[in-house]
Amino acid sequence: MTEFDRDRIQVIACDIFGTTVDWYSGVAAQAAEIFDAAGVDLDAGEFADDWREMYAPSMQRVRDGERAWAYLDTLHRESLDTLLDGHGVAGAFDEAARRRLVRAWHVLPAWPDSVAGLERLRRRYTVAALSNGGFALLTRLIKAAALPMDCVVSAELAHSYKPAPEVYRTAAGLLDVEPDRVLMVACHTWDLDGARAAGLRTAFVERPLEKGPHRGADRAADTVSDLVAADFGALADLLGC
Amino acid sequence: MTEFDRDRIQVIACDIFGTTVDWYSGVAAQAAEIFDAAGVDLDAGEFADDWREMYAPSMQRVRDGERAWAYLDTLHRESLDTLLDGHGVAGAFDEAARRRLVRAWHVLPAWPDSVAGLERLRRRYTVAALSNGGFALLTRLIKAAALPMDCVVSAELAHSYKPAPEVYRTAAGLLDVEPDRVLMVACHTWDLDGARAAGLRTAFVERPLEKGPHRGADRAADTVSDLVAADFGALADLLGC
Repeated sequence: MTEFDRDRIQVIACDIFGTTVDWYSGVAAQAAEIFDAAGVDLDAGEFADDWREMYAPSMQRVRDGERAWAYLDTLHRESLDTLLDGHGVAGAFDEAARRRLVRAWHVLPAWPDSVAGLERLRRRYTVAALSNGGFALLTRLIKAAALPMDCVVSAELAHSYKPAPEVYRTAAGLLDVEPDRVLMVACHTWDLDGARAAGLRTAFVERPLEKGPHRGADRAADTVSDLVAADFGALADLLGC
Repeated sequence: MTEFDRDRIQVIACDIFGTTVDWYSGVAAQAAEIFDAAGVDLDAGEFADDWREMYAPSMQRVRDGERAWAYLDTLHRESLDTLLDGHGVAGAFDEAARRRLVRAWHVLPAWPDSVAGLERLRRRYTVAALSNGGFALLTRLIKAAALPMDCVVSAELAHSYKPAPEVYRTAAGLLDVEPDRVLMVACHTWDLDGARAAGLRTAFVERPLEKGPHRGADRAADTVSDLVAADFGALADLLGC
């Protein structure tokens, strides 16, 4: 790939879960309330981590064509049911409680630097959300977290999931720019590897607490991205915004 | 259709050209500059109106399946070429000038009430752009006019054009709500008729100067919408925002 030229970038495509919002704290806090109400003694942080770990394999089955495209809520619900079964607490959660748990992924707190950093990036670039979350989920989540975005692009629009190349190319196509004019920003190396393979440029934002205090996250040393930043403020600095 | 219940509405789907932005003044001003540079003596306002009038039949051919789906820029370009030929000035406009003319539709001024009114609506509802403009065009236009929107939904995502019912249903589907939870806001009766036929609720915003001073626009008396408002501020009043 050619040398990174920041003047060529026109679009910042921004991952959401982990990168701009803290899914771990948000899901754990909401799950803890629902567990309390159900009288169930489960570690909500551990549960959030376990749930999230089922996400990659569930999407892989869609990408591999083993099953038809399914909404992220559907995948979350299936893995939730499996997880509750595994803990032997399926009987404690009725349909309404399970729906509330799935909806926990719709309202999550922004990391402290996300709003101000994105606002700076947005002055110069078109800033688009690019996530595996469904279009409705993302719209709701971005509004609730007050993330400054110019538009929402969901993997749903490509009927696939990142890191499939068609998701990244759909984003570039909808925004009518060549893929190498898009800078994909994420805290996951698998996402940036997928973006790079699809011809996008990449920026790694380090979120060491993405999975909470007990599990490790991808770190700057693991990545080969064009840019590496500690948060969105540092990324805006690197891009001269 | 059942009586209008504003508490049932969750999404405001907002038309763009004419409804939130003043395409007539914006296109006429940019065209006047380009005509001057080309040394051509044409009435830019009249030209903007004539150009816009070719828009409905060009989309109709797509909806009727006479031609494959084409981006709005492509339709604008084809009608521009026809219009310049008709005026006998085709030779005065090279490729770059024609592209600049087509791009005039990408940057248009908001009506004075649009930003403040939409901001009020956005406090309670999800506010989505729903236009026949392409996704990139709309994203650029909304950003330039600083329209407060939660997301952009283009007819491009349905590969059709309003008033085809699939465009309205695609918007409701992407936002994961029943069609009758969407309030379509527009200054065109044909758009609201299409929305109603697809099961949406409707609000007419009157823009008497939509086509400039010399041609008539749709008026409140022509519509059978659930709500009728003089501008976005009045619409926010009607919805109690």
